[in-house]
This record gives sequence, structure tokens and C-alpha cells, in this order.
Amino acid sequence: MNPLRIFSTSIFLFFGLTVFAQKSSLWKEVQPGVWKSQIGNSRHISLLQAAGGNALHDALKLLPNSHFPLSKDDIKIQIIDKKIYLRFPLNQEEQIFGLGLNFQSVNQRGRILNLHVDHYGGKDNGRTHAPVPFYVSSKGYGVLIDAAAYMTVYAGSNVRADAKHPAPIQDRNSDKNWDSQPPSDVLEVLIPADGASIYVFAGPSPMQVVQRYNLFNGGGYLPPKWGLGFTQRVPTLFSQDDIIKEAKSFEAHQFPLDFIGVEPGWHSASYPCTFEWDPGRFPRPKAFLDTLSRMGLSANLWLNPYVSPKSSLYAGIKKYTGSHLVWNGLVPDFTMAEARKLVKTHFVKNHLDIGVGGYKIDEVDGYDHWIWPDVTTFPSGTSAEQMRQIYGLMVQEMTSSWFKEKNKRTYGLIRASNAGASSLPYVIYNDYYSHKDFITALVNSSFIGVLWTPEVRASKSAEEWVRRMQSVCFSPMAMLNAWSDGTKPWSFPEVEKAVSDVANLRMQLLPYLYTTFAQYRFEGKPPFRAMNLVDGFGFKPVGMKGKVDGTDNPYGMSIKNDIKDQYMMGDFILVAPMFAGEKTRDVYLPEGKWYDFYTGKLVGENQKIQISPSLDKIPLFVKDGALIPMVPVHRQAPKDGQAFALEIRHYGQKAGTWKLYDDDGRTFNFEKGAHSWTEFGVKQAANGQLEAYPKQVAPKSNFGYLPEITWTFMTK
Amino acid sequence: MNPLRIFSTSIFLFFGLTVFAQKSSLWKEVQPGVWKSQIGNSRHISLLQAAGGNALHDALKLLPNSHFPLSKDDIKIQIIDKKIYLRFPLNQEEQIFGLGLNFQSVNQRGRILNLHVDHYGGKDNGRTHAPVPFYVSSKGYGVLIDAAAYMTVYAGSNVRADAKHPAPIQDRNSDKNWDSQPPSDVLEVLIPADGASIYVFAGPSPMQVVQRYNLFNGGGYLPPKWGLGFTQRVPTLFSQDDIIKEAKSFEAHQFPLDFIGVEPGWHSASYPCTFEWDPGRFPRPKAFLDTLSRMGLSANLWLNPYVSPKSSLYAGIKKYTGSHLVWNGLVPDFTMAEARKLVKTHFVKNHLDIGVGGYKIDEVDGYDHWIWPDVTTFPSGTSAEQMRQIYGLMVQEMTSSWFKEKNKRTYGLIRASNAGASSLPYVIYNDYYSHKDFITALVNSSFIGVLWTPEVRASKSAEEWVRRMQSVCFSPMAMLNAWSDGTKPWSFPEVEKAVSDVANLRMQLLPYLYTTFAQYRFEGKPPFRAMNLVDGFGFKPVGMKGKVDGTDNPYGMSIKNDIKDQYMMGDFILVAPMFAGEKTRDVYLPEGKWYDFYTGKLVGENQKIQISPSLDKIPLFVKDGALIPMVPVHRQAPKDGQAFALEIRHYGQKAGTWKLYDDDGRTFNFEKGAHSWTEFGVKQAANGQLEAYPKQVAPKSNFGYLPEITWTFMTK
Repeated sequence: MNPLRIFSTSIFLFFGLTVFAQKSSLWKEVQPGVWKSQIGNSRHISLLQAAGGNALHDALKLLPNSHFPLSKDDIKIQIIDKKIYLRFPLNQEEQIFGLGLNFQSVNQRGRILNLHVDHYGGKDNGRTHAPVPFYVSSKGYGVLIDAAAYMTVYAGSNVRADAKHPAPIQDRNSDKNWDSQPPSDVLEVLIPADGASIYVFAGPSPMQVVQRYNLFNGGGYLPPKWGLGFTQRVPTLFSQDDIIKEAKSFEAHQFPLDFIGVEPGWHSASYPCTFEWDPGRFPRPKAFLDTLSRMGLSANLWLNPYVSPKSSLYAGIKKYTGSHLVWNGLVPDFTMAEARKLVKTHFVKNHLDIGVGGYKIDEVDGYDHWIWPDVTTFPSGTSAEQMRQIYGLMVQEMTSSWFKEKNKRTYGLIRASNAGASSLPYVIYNDYYSHKDFITALVNSSFIGVLWTPEVRASKSAEEWVRRMQSVCFSPMAMLNAWSDGTKPWSFPEVEKAVSDVANLRMQLLPYLYTTFAQYRFEGKPPFRAMNLVDGFGFKPVGMKGKVDGTDNPYGMSIKNDIKDQYMMGDFILVAPMFAGEKTRDVYLPEGKWYDFYTGKLVGENQKIQISPSLDKIPLFVKDGALIPMVPVHRQAPKDGQAFALEIRHYGQKAGTWKLYDDDGRTFNFEKGAHSWTEFGVKQAANGQLEAYPKQVAPKSNFGYLPEITWTFMTK
Repeated sequence: MNPLRIFSTSIFLFFGLTVFAQKSSLWKEVQPGVWKSQIGNSRHISLLQAAGGNALHDALKLLPNSHFPLSKDDIKIQIIDKKIYLRFPLNQEEQIFGLGLNFQSVNQRGRILNLHVDHYGGKDNGRTHAPVPFYVSSKGYGVLIDAAAYMTVYAGSNVRADAKHPAPIQDRNSDKNWDSQPPSDVLEVLIPADGASIYVFAGPSPMQVVQRYNLFNGGGYLPPKWGLGFTQRVPTLFSQDDIIKEAKSFEAHQFPLDFIGVEPGWHSASYPCTFEWDPGRFPRPKAFLDTLSRMGLSANLWLNPYVSPKSSLYAGIKKYTGSHLVWNGLVPDFTMAEARKLVKTHFVKNHLDIGVGGYKIDEVDGYDHWIWPDVTTFPSGTSAEQMRQIYGLMVQEMTSSWFKEKNKRTYGLIRASNAGASSLPYVIYNDYYSHKDFITALVNSSFIGVLWTPEVRASKSAEEWVRRMQSVCFSPMAMLNAWSDGTKPWSFPEVEKAVSDVANLRMQLLPYLYTTFAQYRFEGKPPFRAMNLVDGFGFKPVGMKGKVDGTDNPYGMSIKNDIKDQYMMGDFILVAPMFAGEKTRDVYLPEGKWYDFYTGKLVGENQKIQISPSLDKIPLFVKDGALIPMVPVHRQAPKDGQAFALEIRHYGQKAGTWKLYDDDGRTFNFEKGAHSWTEFGVKQAANGQLEAYPKQVAPKSNFGYLPEITWTFMTK
């Protein structure tokens, strides 16, 4: 007998038994509206375990009751060729969102993605910084595949011979509408792993699917207030004096600055890193951090986690590291408690204890030419592939736990993430630099429980500069990353005022933005949202038949359109960024009336509009009935005891209510009740006029605001 | 106990035993200078088995005796995480060639390739039409990994913690020469398969490594003489009358034409295909083929192997096809004898029996959006991944066997191939269209036992047109593929003469080219050869440190130079194609004196020269002592009984000998001895003059030549 056959059979039996054992528990409701099915080895390495979140049961209970949202008979889960195979049904009009931090497409229907943690290489093929195996259907359900493996998702790309809804047979010789991609009625997944947990999330709306997903993973992260201010990262080899000087120049320019990013030069050696202060550039790190603190600034330290032979960590950690080096540095096996403990001791003592506020953790994504190869072995027995998929999650979870132990919120930067990351205090960034694609990534981040910053580094023109600065001020982290170029917000004098204006506007909007993040924390609503998560957004993708061209398009592939360059910040503000070289753009407005943020004027309703905005403003549109809390222009998040005057703007003609969130802005005391939700609203009075309430913030809510409220009706 | 652990252990034991069983036979010399090591399941699906070649033992014996070319202790073969792991040593200066049909790079040292049959997507990442897992070292040995799996090759890209030759530790903060890719001393491979055969090939030269590799796989394919003539592919929906008209227009233009490509319109339905003649466009296929034959033309039929419901094959073959469709067509499981038999019966009856000369087999490579997904199952139990890696080989082997049974040589086109393909009668082509990258593919094809045509389809200018036509006339198949554009060789009247000239020159060189292919067949020497296969080619790649740029090159990656735009046609002719928009180019000349092909003048010796050729000629350089047999301008390969006058050109000052090959040009009778090798040469006579011999071709060699030889001494 063929040894392959014997081998296959024994595998099949092993899995067969496992599958059988699981059958009785197929689709167990593990949280309200969240069902789980387990296949293969139940002790497989899990993304969610690496992320470490705990489901917020009480918050999940507040979402609408729901039944299992799919026909269970149409779902297949089995083992094929020693890999896990999944099949989910798709109906004709269904759109599929999510499946990783994609940069060029929003609707993934028809695409094939090999989900693999990697730097983004310019194509939406699944290799990205957060290849999250979670999708949201426009029909209002979601699916998560929790397995640390390079799985391939065929999101309605291929047609089965036994299709329930067979694709029409065409003849390319005679049919002008011949389609190189006949419609598929299934989404299929191949997972090269010995076990996986599959979760189905109910809606009923796509937004509620995302809420359930985030709440299941522990809710969103609520950054410290300073985390939402402006941040500047300094050139690589800046000394502590250079950095203090840089901070002072922000004071001189009256430009907002809440935290400052310290790049590789703080290490005594880096690439690989020592995680120890360089005695030449940083002779007195504590004094340096204290000075920054007195200037109201937090410091964020760059690192990658690969240990230099010059680090005092090296000798101790060597036996808990992988078989391959990254830039000649050891790769700690963070699935091992010993490695985590050694790193924690070193980091807490050298950084947290003297006041470091957070980290930028670089190069845990890839790319393949410097990260550990898939042939690497680790002392825990974790495979290189599994390690690649979870490393970003592990370093986020590990570092955030240190800050949590100090009851101090942090907010940092990360290059790799994955499923289950919503409760982790990190924003993803990368080296790619397409402004448009950065916005598409921001749109896509909302489906998959991650945050993304379209960071600004440099620009070829003042126009590009101001357009990029405008976008980044409407993102989770308003950051200028000048590590290489030494740029400043005022680097292009001709647009200095416009750049200042948008940074100041972000600071004015912090009450709104902070509340939006509180919605993420408590309700699971992403702070920055794809239009497809907005109720009443009626846009339907239309495939346009491509023209056959022997060289450029031999298969006449059709092009699908996507709304990928506009998004919502919170409940009310639609952001439509402009890009250098473009003087006009289209904006798709959802149902209901929409108003210009700056003027309060009506702009349209459930339609596509074309706008030609000036260079000095980022186009912002506000929903009818919106209530937007703002504060005066200021440079930094409020310090203890400091309070800002509150202005609430109302737009349009509709009544409405909204709740403003507040707390101390920097600790986790809010989790023990030390926070407030202040409802305010506008109602139709007997005389037909709109009437606003309250006029004052209640004393118990008074964390960061003066009691008096100014109401402004923006639409006359 | 963790079930994962139990599972891993049992796998480990299983493989452990297998490995143990193999230990005694590690590196068994299976052919002269060819050693094999088997790991895991010895019945794994093999690329070489799919290709079906048989080693040419007698020819292998003629190569120099050799010892195992590496230190066996430095080679590791083991099972890690249920995958096969290989490690081979690399020394500092070593260059690595091969590893698939790459389009942009020649030296693969430092690269990572995931070898995966696919259309070429614009990056040398391993996904390509022939991802052959074979490499040739500049040190003069080769390694083949025979396994049908998506293996990843780390060709000296990553550094091990236990490196024998550790990379220097650097500090990016202080070291200006910091390298983002520290030097590695190993080549590592991860093979997700349960078995593999590893072969090591001795040299001692890189050319002899390639010869051994090709001879081990059955030697190269010797095309029929008509296969080396010019070929035109007609627009998709051309009828039989249109095609006859097209052929007549070639006669009218006195342009060479040996075979004609019939595109999808010959099927009664295509995409998916019926493999049956369309009664409207081709009412009398046999008469059509007979007419072509009377015009001296062979017909080549386009197809992809996916079976339309409208085909009479459909019902019978359905149960031997995969779970997924390609363009709604069934995917035959060609590992099953039943599927092969049904297809053979249908094809032989409908095509071969009425005179079809060959096939163009399209779309067996990818891309993922239409080929069967990796979740597909096949009735034989072959996995989708295995099927993807071997399908191109199987259809080549299967179709060629039909022609062989008729004792008729064929020559066709294929989109996917793999290891072991040298003896198969197919040339690879694709939809990509970069002229420069097409030449790099031609260079790379020589390392891996495949043929490649830089086909011409269309051009944006007359300059591009003539430059592309010149290149394709110095390639394995001189083809204009006008399926979409309907272009003709004379489509750009301003360069019609230059295009005619180069096609005529190819026809004049056919004795030389045919012999070059005979060297491929009998000695394993590739007909078109990378410069790195030429003895005395002293070029060494030099890494140039990249400039750090925060946006374009944040890691300051270095750029390596490669010789990828020039190559040898056979033993003597160096081809240096020109590309549109470039008026000058560099040419690297190996050791020895080199002469201009057209004038016989000395151009240089072991040096880089710069040339500025005119538009009407492709730059060709000839080695000192070269002997080049040529015939008069003619339109088609000789028919039975036809013979051409032979001119032999000598270049330079050196004496030399060469052997001209000949046979009937169309059958396999040559394999039974019906062929000749005629030695001719130039020797230094007593008076110091060069003297040529013989003056006549011997009668027994007289397949296609008149007895009288004209000798021309090109260098005065």
C-alpha cells in the first residue's frame, strides 16, 4: 500500500474524530449574538488569545437580540488534505468588507486574499500589517476565523461545480458580455492549521456586527487625552537637548503638541537594539523625561524587539529566542513567560519607571528580507508562521499590560496586528506613502478592530503637505513622522496657517473625538468609520466591463467601483479629504440632509455631489440634527484641574440627542466608574423653534469642562 | 496533555522513521554526477514524474567525472512543523541562478522565492509560469527539489543564530555602512509536502551543471525544422478562409511563415472550450488543414483545457474532474488514466488525425481569479496545490505523447511548466509585455530547462516594433501573436525592410540554430544561454549601497547589478537586443576576442563596450574562431527532398572545429540513428594561413543541404 495513503488516512481519522467530537457543540452561542464552532485541535495557537481581550458581556447584551444569521446547512467546515476548509454562502448582491488592512479596495467580494502579516507591498493580496481574518457582510453578519496561519480566503472568487446558484455558461467567441470572473455563490477559506475557532457574529446591521466583534474582543481602546493631541517624531539621531529644542519650537509656533516620538538614536545601539539609553545623546534620561513632562509632553520611544549583543538583556534572553536573527539581533519567543519576564524587567526599570509614556514598535510585520524566515524554529515549539501571525499582537498586549499595572494609559504605534486587537493601545503605521491609499486603509480599519494613522513624513509640494496634514488631523493619531526628513508642521511656509488651522480644529474637536473613542470602548463602534457602516448609505458597487486589450487587459477584466476616499469621524462628521493635484472631488452623501461643517449650509441628501474646496480647509459634512461639542483652540490635553469652555454646535433642522463622555483622561479609574456620560440635545419646542438643553454641564461630569455651555445653531 | 503535542509527536515519529529508513541511502549517485536524497514519503507527487523524462545515461557519462560537490555535513534535511526543511551552505562570493522563470533578476542570491505556478505579476517573488525548484551555483553545482508544493526558498536572505560565518554586528545609529540585509551563509527551503526528492548535480562548470540537469530529464527537445521558422497567430474570430488569406498575404510579402496559430474562434464555444470545430467559421477543417499543408504550413490550435458543457467530452469526463470550475468549464484530473484517455480519443480524432501540428495551451498557470482555487478537490485525491504545480507539465507530456505515437514532431506553446520539462516540445509565453523583462526571462530560461519566447503582439512605435521583432527572431520561437490586434510583420511600413531582414536572417541561420537545438537534445546545452553559463565570463555583481529616504527607501536597501539583457544563441553568437527609446547600450564581452557578426570586425575582448547601433540591425557579436553555417534567404523549412546551399562563415583569427547536425527535420527517426553530425573546421596551415575543411558535405549527411560548401572568412 502507498505510504501516502496510509499517512493520509491516519490523519483523516485523527481529524475525523476531532470533528466528530465537536459536532454536538457546532455553533454554540458563546456571547449574545456570537456563535462559535471549533474544528481540529482545540488548543491551536489563537489570535484572540495572543490579543488577550475579554468579551464585554454586559455591553453585548445591549445589542438587539438575534438569531444565527445564516443557514447552517449552507456552511461547510471540514478537513481537506490536512488543512481546514470552510465554505460560507454568498447571495448575489452581497458585499464583503474587512479581511485585513487593505489599502486599495473596500469591498472584497470577488477577491482572493492570502492573509499573512507583512509590510504592505502595493497590492491588496492579503499581505498586510493587519491581515485580520474577519469579514463583515453587507447583509449584516460577520465571520471570524481565529487561527494563526497563512490562510487563503476566496471571497466569492471561484465557482464550484456543485454551485447552488450556478453561474451562467458563456461563450467568449460569441458573447460580448463574457465575464472573466463568473459570479460565485460561496466564500471559501483554506487554513493550513491543525485547529481553528470559527465565530459568526449577528447584526442586524453591519455596524452592529462590528460592534459585536469589538465588544467580544474587549471593546475598543480609550486613549489618554494626550494621545489624541498632536505628535511629532524627531530625526533619528536627535539628542535629548535637540528634542527639548524641538518641543520649544512648537511652543514658539503655538502649534499643538502633546507627545513626542523619540527615534532609534535613544538606544546605545539599534538595528538590533539595546533598549538602553545612549550615554552620549541621552546622558540624563530621567531629567530629559521630567523636562518634557514639565512642558506637558509625553515621550514615545521607538524600538524593534530584536536584541543586540550589546544589550544587557542579551545573555539572559538568548535561550528564549529563535534560530534566526533579525539584523543580527535575537528574536525573543514571547510565547514563553521567561522571555516576557526578562523584557518586562528591563523595560519597566529603564523606561516606564522614569516616565516613558509609550512605544513605537517597528518591524514586527516584515518584510521577508529581514524578519525571521518561515524556517525559523522557536524554543517553545511555536512555528515561525504562527509566530509571524501573532507577534504584533503579543508585543502590543505585553507592553500595554505594563502600563495598565501602573494605572496609566498609553497610546503608541505598531507595525503588525491581527484579530482581537481593538482593546490594545496601538495605532498601525507603515512605510508606504500613497495619500489616497492611506485613506482607504483608514476606511478599512473600521471593519477589523484596528486603528490606523495616515502619518505625514514629507511632501513634494505645499499643496500635498497641507492635504496630508489635513487628513492626519482627522485620524486616530495626528502625527508628523520626521525621523528621516526633519520636517516640521511649518515646513511649507505658504500653507503654515492652513496647517495650523486644521491642527487647531482637531484640538477644538477633542470633546467630540474623545467621546467617539469612548463609544469605541463601551459600545464597540469604531471611531473612524467606513461609509458602508452608516445606516442609509445606499451606494451599490457597479462592475464596469473592461475593454479587451491584447497587452493591457487580455481578459477584459471588469473594474468595480468602491467608496474608499471618504469616511465618518464618529456619529456626525463625514470627512472627504482632498489629494494633491485634485481640485474637485465627488462625495457620496447617505440618506438624510447633510450640511457643510464650516458654514452650516445644506449641501445635499442621499446623492453624489461634486465639490471644489479651497486649499485651506478639509471638506467636512455634518448630518442633519448633529450635535458637535467643541472647545477653544489649545495646544495640549487638559492637565489635572484644567477645564475648557464647551461650545455645542447643532447642524440642520432636526431634533436630536447625544451623550458627551468624560473622565480623568489618563488613568483606568474610568473602568471603576470614574467617568460620566452627559446627555445633551435639541428638541422641537411648542413654537416650532429648536431648543437646546442643558445649558450647563452637571458638576459630577466636570472632568475637563467649565460648567457653562455655549450653544451655536449652525444652520440658519 | 495538549492534543497538539500528541499530534505533533505522532507525525514526528512517522517522519522520523521515514527519515531513518532513508539515512543509509542519503546521497545515492543515481546517474553520473547526479546524487539523490529522499525525505518523507517516497511516493510523493513528483514534478519529474509528471514531466515524464528519462535520464540519458550515455550522454551523462560523457561529462567529466565528478565527486559530490558540497560538504555533506553542511547540508541539513529534516522535518520541522510537519514541513520539510533543507539547508545548503553558501560561500561569500557565490551567485545563485535559476529558481524559476524570473523576469527581472538573474542572480537570485539574497532573494526569497515562494515557488508557485502562476501568471507573472510583475515581481520576482517565485510566482511565475515555471517556478522550477532548481538552482545553479556559480561555484559549479546544482540542486533540484523535486516536490509538487508551494515551497519557499531563502536564497541566502536570512542569518542563522548558529551561522558558521556570522554576519558582522552593526549599529545603524553609528555605522554608515549598516546593511539592511546582513550576509547569510545558507540557502534554506521550506517545503509544505510530506515527501520530496533532493538532487545534487555536479559541474564542474555552471554549464555542465545545466547539461547534467537537462540530460537527467531526458535531454532537450529537438523541434521540427518548421518549428524554428516564423509563426503568425491570427485574430480570435478568423475563419478558415480568413486564415488562408492571411497565409497568402505572407506569400505576397515574401515573408517567412512556417506555421500558423489558430486562436479560440476555431472552437464551437470557448472559455470554456468544446475542442470541436466551429461549423460556421470552420465548415471543412480537414480541407482547411490540407490547404495549409499544400502552402507548406502547419497549424497550431489554441486551447485551454477546461471543458465546456457544450462539448461532447463533457458528460463522459465529468466524473474525472475537480470540484471547482474554470470559466464554468470542468477541470480534468489528468493524474487519472480515464481522463487522459477520453481527452486523447477526442483530440486525436478531431485534430491530429486530420493534420493539426501542435497546440497552444493557455491558462494552465493562473491567475488565481480564474484557475481552480487551492480548496479544490480532485477525484484522484491529488490536492489542488499539487495539481497547480504539475498541471502544465502533465498537459505538455500528455499532448506530446500523442504526436510521438504518430512519429511526428510537434512544437507548441504553454503557459505553465516546472522542473523536468527540457524534453517537452513547448515554449512558454505569457500576457506580460515588458520587452526588457522578456529578455531577462530568456536569459533565465537557460538555467531551468525551459524555452521562452518574447512574443510580439503590438507596439507603440515603429522603433519598438522593429526592436521587438529583432529579439523574437533570436529566440526559440519567432512569433507574432496577433490574436487581439491583428498586427502583421509589415504593420509599421517604415521598418518593414528591417523586420523582413531580421526574419530572413533567422531563416539563413537555421542550420546553426537547428544544430544548437540538437546540442540541447543530445548534450543538454540550452540553445539560448545566460552569459553566466559562458566560460570566461568574468562579470561579478557589485552591491551598491542605497540612499536612505524616509519615503522611497527607508532601509537604504542596496541595489545589485545583473547582466540580464544579453545572451548567447548557441556556442558562438552573443545577442545584445536594443529596446525602444535607447540609442546606446553596454555589452559585456567574455574572455577572448569578439567580432561584429555583420562586418567581421574586432569589437573587444573581456571588457564592457558601449555600442550605438542603427535601427535596422540587432547587435550580434561572434567569438574568435566561430564557425557559423548559413543558407540562402528562404521562407520555409526544407520539404522532403529539398536542399539548401551551405555557406560557412569563419570569424576572427583562431582555428576551430564545429559539428553541424542534420536529420529529416520532422520525425523521431533521428532517435534510431537517422541523423548526422558533420564536423567542419578551420586550421592553421603551414604557411600561417587559415584553411577550411571540408569543401563538401558528405553524402550520408545530406538531409537538407547541397553538397557544395561556400566558405567565407569574415575577418580580413
